[in-house]
This record gives sequence, C-alpha cells and structure tokens, in this order.
Amino acid sequence: MYTLKFVGLCGSLRQASRNRGLLRCCAAHLPKGITLELADVAALPFYNEDLPKPAAVSTLAEQVRTADALVLACPEYNYSLAPALKNALDWLSREAAPTPLDGKAACIIGAGGGMGTARAQYHLRQVGVYLNLRFLNKPELFANAFGPAFDADGNVVDAALAQQTGELMQALADWTCQLKKA
Amino acid sequence: MYTLKFVGLCGSLRQASRNRGLLRCCAAHLPKGITLELADVAALPFYNEDLPKPAAVSTLAEQVRTADALVLACPEYNYSLAPALKNALDWLSREAAPTPLDGKAACIIGAGGGMGTARAQYHLRQVGVYLNLRFLNKPELFANAFGPAFDADGNVVDAALAQQTGELMQALADWTCQLKKA
Amino acid sequence: MYTLKFVGLCGSLRQASRNRGLLRCCAAHLPKGITLELADVAALPFYNEDLPKPAAVSTLAEQVRTADALVLACPEYNYSLAPALKNALDWLSREAAPTPLDGKAACIIGAGGGMGTARAQYHLRQVGVYLNLRFLNKPELFANAFGPAFDADGNVVDAALAQQTGELMQALADWTCQLKKA
Amino acid sequence: MYTLKFVGLCGSLRQASRNRGLLRCCAAHLPKGITLELADVAALPFYNEDLPKPAAVSTLAEQVRTADALVLACPEYNYSLAPALKNALDWLSREAAPTPLDGKAACIIGAGGGMGTARAQYHLRQVGVYLNLRFLNKPELFANAFGPAFDADGNVVDAALAQQTGELMQALADWTCQLKKA
Repeated sequence: MYTLKFVGLCGSLRQASRNRGLLRCCAAHLPKGITLELADVAALPFYNEDLPKPAAVSTLAEQVRTADALVLACPEYNYSLAPALKNALDWLSREAAPTPLDGKAACIIGAGGGMGTARAQYHLRQVGVYLNLRFLNKPELFANAFGPAFDADGNVVDAALAQQTGELMQALADWTCQLKKA
Repeated sequence: MYTLKFVGLCGSLRQASRNRGLLRCCAAHLPKGITLELADVAALPFYNEDLPKPAAVSTLAEQVRTADALVLACPEYNYSLAPALKNALDWLSREAAPTPLDGKAACIIGAGGGMGTARAQYHLRQVGVYLNLRFLNKPELFANAFGPAFDADGNVVDAALAQQTGELMQALADWTCQLKKA
Repeated sequence: MYTLKFVGLCGSLRQASRNRGLLRCCAAHLPKGITLELADVAALPFYNEDLPKPAAVSTLAEQVRTADALVLACPEYNYSLAPALKNALDWLSREAAPTPLDGKAACIIGAGGGMGTARAQYHLRQVGVYLNLRFLNKPELFANAFGPAFDADGNVVDAALAQQTGELMQALADWTCQLKKA
Repeated sequence: MYTLKFVGLCGSLRQASRNRGLLRCCAAHLPKGITLELADVAALPFYNEDLPKPAAVSTLAEQVRTADALVLACPEYNYSLAPALKNALDWLSREAAPTPLDGKAACIIGAGGGMGTARAQYHLRQVGVYLNLRFLNKPELFANAFGPAFDADGNVVDAALAQQTGELMQALADWTCQLKKA
C-alpha cells in the first residue's frame, strides 16, 4: 500500500484545457493511498531576476517540496513547451538548493495534435536533466486533443485513455517507491 | 546597398540582461542601410486562448510584419527556452495566416553559461520549423555571459564579440536578400 | 520550367524498406524537368579517421556535389537517426570545403511508427545546421509504415501519400530555385 | 562496498580516440569493488533487418546483459551521434524483451569540441527514453578533446578531468545501487 502525494502542474491556462482534463483524469485513476493535488501556475509572473520572489512562488515551492512525485501536463505550442509550465519550473529552479525539484520522480502527460505533444515532451525531458527530475521513461502518454477522447470542457470521455492514465499513475507510484527505498 | 529593417526580440526581462546587451551590440554593428528596432515582449501576458487579443500583441505583430528579418536573443533557462521569448512567438503564431513570422529570415544570438545558450538555441530552431522561420545556419553565436565580455549593465565590452555580432548581421543581411530576390 | 537534379539518400538498408519506397514514389512524382537519382550509402564503412578515403565516398561525394538538392529518407531507430544515413553525411562532411552538402537545398521524408519518424527528423535538422543544409521547413512528411499505405515490397500504394510526395517535390523544386536565383 | 560490473561502449573507432581514452580513464578511477569492461562495437555491421543476427551481436548482448551499468562514450559528429555507437544500441534493441538495455543504469561521457559533445549527448538521452536506459542526470561530463587534457594517443593527462571521471564513476555506482535495492 502506498502513502504518496503527487502534485500536478498544467502548462495550459485556458478554462477547457484538455491537458488539465488529463490531470483530472489522472486524479480519478490513482492507486489506493495516493493523492494528486493540482498546483496553480497561472499566478506566477514571467521569471525576472530583478523581481522580489512573488508569494505565489513560495506557495508553489512548498507544495512541490512536499510532493513525492510530479505529474507535468505538457501542451505543445509551436513544437516546444508552453511558457506557463516552463516558467513555473524556472522559478522553482531558483529556490535554495536542493530545489524542490531536485531528485524528484516525475512523469509527463500531454494532449495535442497528431503527435500528442511529443515534440514538447522531449524538450521537457532535456529540462529535467538540469533540474535533476527523475522522469519515468515509460509508459509515455500522447493524447489526441482533437478527437473524441475529450468533451468540450476538456474532460476525458474515452475509456481507453482513462485506463492509460491509470496505468501511468501506477507506474509513477512504483518508480517513486523504487527511488525512495534506495 | 541594403535598405532593410531588422527587429530584435529579447527573451530576458531583467534590466542588465546580457542578451539585450548583445542586441544593442548588433544594432551598433549593422551594415550600411540597415536598421534594428528592439521590440518589447514584456508587456505580453501568457498566451491563453480564452483571452481577447491584447493590444500589445497587435503592436508586436505589426512591428514584426514590417520587418525584413528577425534577430532573436535567446537566453537559456534550465537547458531550454526563456518563456518570455517563446510566449511572444506563440502569440505571433496565432495571427491570421500568413503570420508575421511566416517565411521570415531570422538569426539567433545568446549569452549564457559555458555553452552560450546552445541547448536553448536548438530548441528555438525546432520551433522555427513550425513557424516557417528561415534561420541562418551559420555563423552561430554563443557568448559567455559570465566572463569579461560584458560589463555590469550587460553591455558588450569585448572587441572580438562585437566583431562577431557585426559579421552575423552581415550574414543575416545577405541571407535576407537571398530570400527576397527569389 | 525546371532543369534540376535531385539526389536521394536512404537510411534503411533492407530490401523492402518503406523509406526507399517513399523515395521511389518521389521519383515517380517529380515536376517536369527534374530527375531524382538514388545514391547508394550501403557501400560505406563506418566513418573512421584512420581509414584512407574509400572509393565509395568519392563516388557519393561527386553525386551529391552535382545535385541541385537532396531528398533524405530518414527512418527512425530508437527515437533517433539510422546510422547508415548519418554515416553517409559524416563522410561527406569530411570532404574539402566547401563540402558537397554546404548550402544545398534539402528535404526530409520518413516512414515509421505512429509519428512517422518525426523524432529522428528533428535530430536530422540539427545535423543540417552544422552541415549548412538548407532544409525546407514545410511541408513535412511523416508516413505510417505499418498501415495500408505500403505494400509488402515497400511500394507506396496510397494515393493520398503519393500526392503528398508530389507536393513535397514541387515545394523542394521551388525552394531550390529560390536559393539559386539569389 | 560494491560488487558491480560496468561495461563501456565507445562510439569512435579510431586508434587514438579521446573518447576511448576517457573510458580508460574511467576504468582507472573506479570505486573499490567495481570493474569496467570495454565492449567492442567495431565488429558490428550496420543494422539491417534482412541480415541473420551476427555473432558479434550475441557477444555484445551477453556482455551488456550481465553488466550492472553502462558507460557510453559519445563522440559528436555533425551535432549528433556517432553511427557506430548508435548502431550498437540499435542491434541491442532488437534482442528479445526484456532487452539487455531495459532498465539499466547508465551514464554518458564525451570528448569533443568546445561543447564537449553536448549536442550528441542530448540526442543519446532521447534514445535512452525508448530503450529504457536509466541515465544519471548529473554530473554530466563534457571534455575538450582539443586542449591539453589528452595526449596524442588519446590518454587523459589532466588531473582535474581524471578526478571528474572518478566522481562520475562514484555517482554511477550509487545510482546503480539505488535502482537495484528497490
């Protein structure tokens, strides 16, 4: 039995975001004993070294620090990352070392065009090398945002996709435990 | 003799940004007949499909549309792009087709750690495939932001780096003309 | 009217290669006045600085040098490039400057799994920055090798895919001319 | 105390390869109880689905299967991977599942130009996602092949670089154990 807290970050800010819908679907398909909190990245300004640290960054940092693992919902804009997600990671990377991200288990989900945000996801994996995120290699999750798998509010309405998210959450739980035991 | 307008976008928002300093250095080392305007990306909110188009986007779009070529100052944050630069491109990509970016000549400059923002620059080049930017392949420009090439205000004070920016502007001018003649 | 020679290189060595089939399909859908020769990369040994230059490299170099543009058939093996294609480019990069690749117009085609070799194609584009290949941004071509678009010998039997290859050849012809006029 | 076997693969085939020199340096700076065998990838033909499996592949597969972790010496050719290294991984990926690579701890070393093969190393990391290699995030190792750190035979003669390889081997040992305990 697990007792783990996952925290989810979503790179899309729109109301009916399919990527946020995927995160809700993850939250609804967790192994027993695991919770998934959704963090808010919309309140963060663009990173600027001249700014005093915004309160929203401290809140997010605390939430991520207490997480056992992260679920990153990664839209693809123009073949790369959504700025809102990247910006949240950039702020977190400036926290005192070890940062809240350092050594943390993580996985990526994404809903987009035909390749399901794959191009952005591989950029995110490169970011993870520097941040020392421990990304799960497999399973990868690439959802088609424009097919019938989502309703107009961004909810997952496809059983196969829902099952995939459940399997991913299971794999993330196992990976998190594997890293913790050590 | 050229009669060209270049527009520069900078991904760093801090006052003493070395990347903005590089852009100023480009502006000071232009071939005859070329101007370089610096665009302002700081006024743009994070892209959100639910928002009405902000006035700052229209201003930027007009500025980019009338440019003959773009100079993108590309910081590297955590091995990938600075959100403020990516976000500006994302907004521009949503303009009516052909977008202001479509088919435009462009080059990349960057000041950062030991690799001079190379990791971010290759991500930016992938973004350019979708946006149909015509990036110059060479010369590439990778400046060390932490050595003596910059002063505390971000100005380039190294003659060799200044010469490199001049050569890059010359190459961009030639590339722009090559694409226009056709 | 065009008078152009395209040269095609294929990264897959197997007899029934879908990627070579795509190249044949390109050859069958060329604009008037254009020819497409298939180069042989199978005869090249692995690049090794200690080796004298093999005769097969000289043959390939001459063929590529006299081409107006290149069509690179890019399989995806384990999320990156096929060694046989990369190796051919590596040998060509060691020719006396300007190399046969320098400044040449080029496009990429690929047949593979669900993403049609996209992951490998973006790696190839990064290689092109160094080699100074002038890759067409669009249209991109990602073919599903495992669906009904190919027969067992690797021939394209799908009309829509055949039309796509024709449109790509047309775009490459235009891009080649655009670069030449300048 | 460790009892681990590392296996090293080198992407460069030349006699005086700096990348092979780096591997020898790793072998000379191992924590107690660890051995490092150098595998031979030069004997493998280009992967070709039509070929019967060469004996050299079986030998390599057995060697990799019995390894606790891999050390991949990754040259950079034209901003991406050396075909000889990629080809070895491609052959190994075709072994019966679970492949010899599946779930294995690994790290990357590289000697090259100014960026120390970084561009190739990030491509290799993407390959690792598919192969389910568990790459160490940090420390990364980027050696300058053209400075005084190597002698003419490719041996590491720089104390700081030798110490870096030792620290990397220590980190790989810890990472390997962390993954095994779980």
